[in-house]
Amino acid sequence: MSKTLYLDDLAPGQTFTTGTVTVTLEGSKAFAAEFDPQAFHLDEAAARASVFGALAASGWHTAALSMRLLVDGGLMIAGGLVGLGGEMHWPRPTFPGDTLQVTSEVLTVRVSASKPDRGIVTVRNTTLNQRGEPVQVFVVKMLVPRQQRG
Amino acid sequence: MSKTLYLDDLAPGQTFTTGTVTVTLEGSKAFAAEFDPQAFHLDEAAARASVFGALAASGWHTAALSMRLLVDGGLMIAGGLVGLGGEMHWPRPTFPGDTLQVTSEVLTVRVSASKPDRGIVTVRNTTLNQRGEPVQVFVVKMLVPRQQRG
Repeated sequence: MSKTLYLDDLAPGQTFTTGTVTVTLEGSKAFAAEFDPQAFHLDEAAARASVFGALAASGWHTAALSMRLLVDGGLMIAGGLVGLGGEMHWPRPTFPGDTLQVTSEVLTVRVSASKPDRGIVTVRNTTLNQRGEPVQVFVVKMLVPRQQRG
Repeated sequence: MSKTLYLDDLAPGQTFTTGTVTVTLEGSKAFAAEFDPQAFHLDEAAARASVFGALAASGWHTAALSMRLLVDGGLMIAGGLVGLGGEMHWPRPTFPGDTLQVTSEVLTVRVSASKPDRGIVTVRNTTLNQRGEPVQVFVVKMLVPRQQRG
């Protein structure tokens, strides 16, 4: 069980690690059919002829699975994980059968100038496959509350 | 029917527009239950007390629905839409009942130095709600093939 963290609990350099999830062929195709119905995500033969060389998961499926890992463990923020945006990078594809895990590193912490009950924390969330290769790097700005002192 | 485009068909300033999709409460909750099971995406009362003020869709659901709109129409790239990454921003939440549409603007086009059969195109994909307010801006680097000349 991770502790729920407020802004003042966070500092640059802190790291957190989630559990793991294995990407299934069925899950990959179901996500693609609903949200990213391109041949290289749905059809093995078309995928072999594509830039991916094999059936690949949608990058948005990698992003969604990474979010689920973060919600289930790792960096637990009081009030929930609220991202404002950030820099996304998919250095290589995710393939069905891959096992993913996210490591989070706190990069910056600052109190909001206009709303001193909260702040912005920048976190690098790196999603690794089972070979330790990054399949997604998302440097995200998160909205984090400060603890109310009675 | 949009034409399928190669690198040399693209130039900065070109714009493309997708169709629309309306976010349903059921779809929003189903996505959240699978990928982003936080109270403000699943429970109306908890959402009212949250920073969102009402049940909000996961940002990743907005991203996934935007991808579906792009795949179904708008900027059609030969060989498919392959994103390498980019700068993501969610300026405001998406709420169930919102109707989304994506406009794409080509920002830069360059041929790969190492692989002259392809290039990188930077596109700003802005997802607007029914009031014309951006709910997502994704400035993405895309891999785009050059047409083979026989």
